[in-house]
Amino acid sequence: MTATLHTLDNGVRVICDPMPGLETVALSVVAGRGAIHEDPARSGWSHLLEHMVFKGAGGRSARDIVEVIESEGGQLNAATGYERTSFQVRALKGGLDLGMAVIGDLLLRPTLDAADLAREKSVVLQEIAEAADAPDDYIFDLVQTAAWGDHPLGRPILGTIDTVNAATPQALSDWRAALYAPDRLVVSATGAVDPVELLALARREYGGLAAIAGAPAPPPALFVGGRSSQTRKLEQAHLVLMLPACGAREDDYFSLRIFAEALGGGMSSRLFQEAREKRGLAYNIDAYADTYANEGALGVYAGCAAGDAAEMAKVCAEQIAGLADRIEDAELARAKAQLKAHMFMAREQPLSRSEQAAGQILLFGRPYTPAELAVAVDAVTAADLVRLGQRLLGSGRAATAVLGTKAALKAGDVFERALFNRP
Amino acid sequence: MTATLHTLDNGVRVICDPMPGLETVALSVVAGRGAIHEDPARSGWSHLLEHMVFKGAGGRSARDIVEVIESEGGQLNAATGYERTSFQVRALKGGLDLGMAVIGDLLLRPTLDAADLAREKSVVLQEIAEAADAPDDYIFDLVQTAAWGDHPLGRPILGTIDTVNAATPQALSDWRAALYAPDRLVVSATGAVDPVELLALARREYGGLAAIAGAPAPPPALFVGGRSSQTRKLEQAHLVLMLPACGAREDDYFSLRIFAEALGGGMSSRLFQEAREKRGLAYNIDAYADTYANEGALGVYAGCAAGDAAEMAKVCAEQIAGLADRIEDAELARAKAQLKAHMFMAREQPLSRSEQAAGQILLFGRPYTPAELAVAVDAVTAADLVRLGQRLLGSGRAATAVLGTKAALKAGDVFERALFNRP
Repeated sequence: MTATLHTLDNGVRVICDPMPGLETVALSVVAGRGAIHEDPARSGWSHLLEHMVFKGAGGRSARDIVEVIESEGGQLNAATGYERTSFQVRALKGGLDLGMAVIGDLLLRPTLDAADLAREKSVVLQEIAEAADAPDDYIFDLVQTAAWGDHPLGRPILGTIDTVNAATPQALSDWRAALYAPDRLVVSATGAVDPVELLALARREYGGLAAIAGAPAPPPALFVGGRSSQTRKLEQAHLVLMLPACGAREDDYFSLRIFAEALGGGMSSRLFQEAREKRGLAYNIDAYADTYANEGALGVYAGCAAGDAAEMAKVCAEQIAGLADRIEDAELARAKAQLKAHMFMAREQPLSRSEQAAGQILLFGRPYTPAELAVAVDAVTAADLVRLGQRLLGSGRAATAVLGTKAALKAGDVFERALFNRP
Repeated sequence: MTATLHTLDNGVRVICDPMPGLETVALSVVAGRGAIHEDPARSGWSHLLEHMVFKGAGGRSARDIVEVIESEGGQLNAATGYERTSFQVRALKGGLDLGMAVIGDLLLRPTLDAADLAREKSVVLQEIAEAADAPDDYIFDLVQTAAWGDHPLGRPILGTIDTVNAATPQALSDWRAALYAPDRLVVSATGAVDPVELLALARREYGGLAAIAGAPAPPPALFVGGRSSQTRKLEQAHLVLMLPACGAREDDYFSLRIFAEALGGGMSSRLFQEAREKRGLAYNIDAYADTYANEGALGVYAGCAAGDAAEMAKVCAEQIAGLADRIEDAELARAKAQLKAHMFMAREQPLSRSEQAAGQILLFGRPYTPAELAVAVDAVTAADLVRLGQRLLGSGRAATAVLGTKAALKAGDVFERALFNRP
């Protein structure tokens, strides 16, 4: 079964990927804009708008919006990222028409009432407070700022108390038109879905949507790097270590994914084996590719005792440098097998599959088949990884964040000195 | 397609649930014992043992165990709960034999080396530290103790620093034999799996496993209730409010699930609408059925501003009392639809499906078809919910936990007074 892609006259793309035998359907309507398109004064507005549209839309009250979906056993959700805002419905077979109508109301016809906005600001401020209280959440805000500085990627997706409080219904309404413009809108459905029905429903909701002039484009980003550390009275120290890498559209993308997999993806990875199995330093140790369309980074997260933070940082530096120097054939093969299996297994869950397809269209203009992805992964050589390794280390820049008691705070410094052989 | 169940001569149960069209297989080997079977001195040992078996087993080193699975694109994982310890492999089609062999080594032939144990204790102590640092994790330890007192359910699954440090290789080896005894062992596979192959492989690994005399049974639990509050300098106050309910084997079980769904399951639930949509008090507000085989509770979790904690507690008490008094027909129908859809969608993911089947066998001795579950859910009436509501409120007992600044700490008291109409 192959996914089919259609583009409406106004640029809205519609992708259908039926999965035989399924009794449910997943629908994602994804706007290819988000926090990366916000100027400093609008920080957090994409996320706030995503909340606000649920307060009333298309003549439906907040309660009606969810009751009409949940009465049929469906689930309605939404998520805001740096480059995407996604609205999702999971429903039993036959629930596509209703799901499409409700998401259409949310995206195109939100009420944006002033009293609702005042209340919803309180909810978002609680979400910000919750993220600040969770060390393994807050540490990523810290490193994001260290890595990307004044660029929108350096600001939290949720915004700040001040920027959230500054939003007005009219300002959010203007932002909505730009954010959900048809040139970056994708309608994606998987599971128990018929392509002809999907296209008709997508045309009904989005066929009349007019392009807007001057829809925002993100400024180019520069990985500035730097150290961010904060003391907090915690049982553990939390570390994130980042190096500049490549964007999802670059040739090195799959090399980066494989590098992250071999470094700290599974339990057989270098960091898991060295830091957890051999030294018993950490429970959580993880490496990941943090990529956007045109930029990206390699990241490592670890939680450990504050007194062990310097040793942990040194281990991370050594393992990154070692892998940048050389990868064994068996290790490369294993990382490729892991990466392919992850991509494969993600396709077994309808919602994850519809989101994956929408993401590929936004990045590459078309969906990729599993076979195409496998070919791209298999094509990566040990020499490609060495070249990527040189790129990771070549700028001499790193971004580090440490959160914990005072004993941990030098870990960022230790990491940089060990990685770049500085005295 | 129907799942097939076989019982080996020694009592090990084998369940096979093929899913046509899938390219992957999920294997769960579940021991129906866990932290609820631990006396105070052994607190956390089921979890520590689950960690330790990965350090070496059946002649394989820690590295070999994960490399052999991950080289084929597989994933190996494990989880320890109060009533279950589960070992899981997800693999590409054809990976069942290897997965079964590796899990067999972990369960039956772990090395349990003393030097490895010393290192793994450090890892588990980091896991304990991480849980203590996460407010929305730690709050559940607090309420568990308030609800269940000296019973094993009142102790954390991870144990304490002292009980983890007290474990020796020999003591863990003895505990292993009791914990993974054949009378409570289930082998469950879904996805790309053949029933005949599965049964042969299960027989190869577990057919020769001897029953052990005096395998532990958990003591009966009593919901004692009480208040647990701790000050911590946080942006948010975290609340968990619990009432005694019923176990998964009791007739009221589906009534409890529906009650939790209507109270705080989805976005159309009473708590979401009242506390978040109408009052803007919380970002996270959630109700859940926390059930074990023979006992269980209704729980509500909320995060809010410390100054709003008393209002939040009062809202929760009012909504619980209101729902216990009366549920509207449309609301009951919606909660049923939601519950059925959740159970249905969980079956679309192979690993979640194999775990669900193993759990049903441990609780009820056989798997339930989706149709049977739907019948059980549909049979619940408004009168059943009123009777459950009387049971929830009838004991006059509640367990509450509050974590946050001083302004929040009275929330538990406010909840009890409002719920039980105490002056």
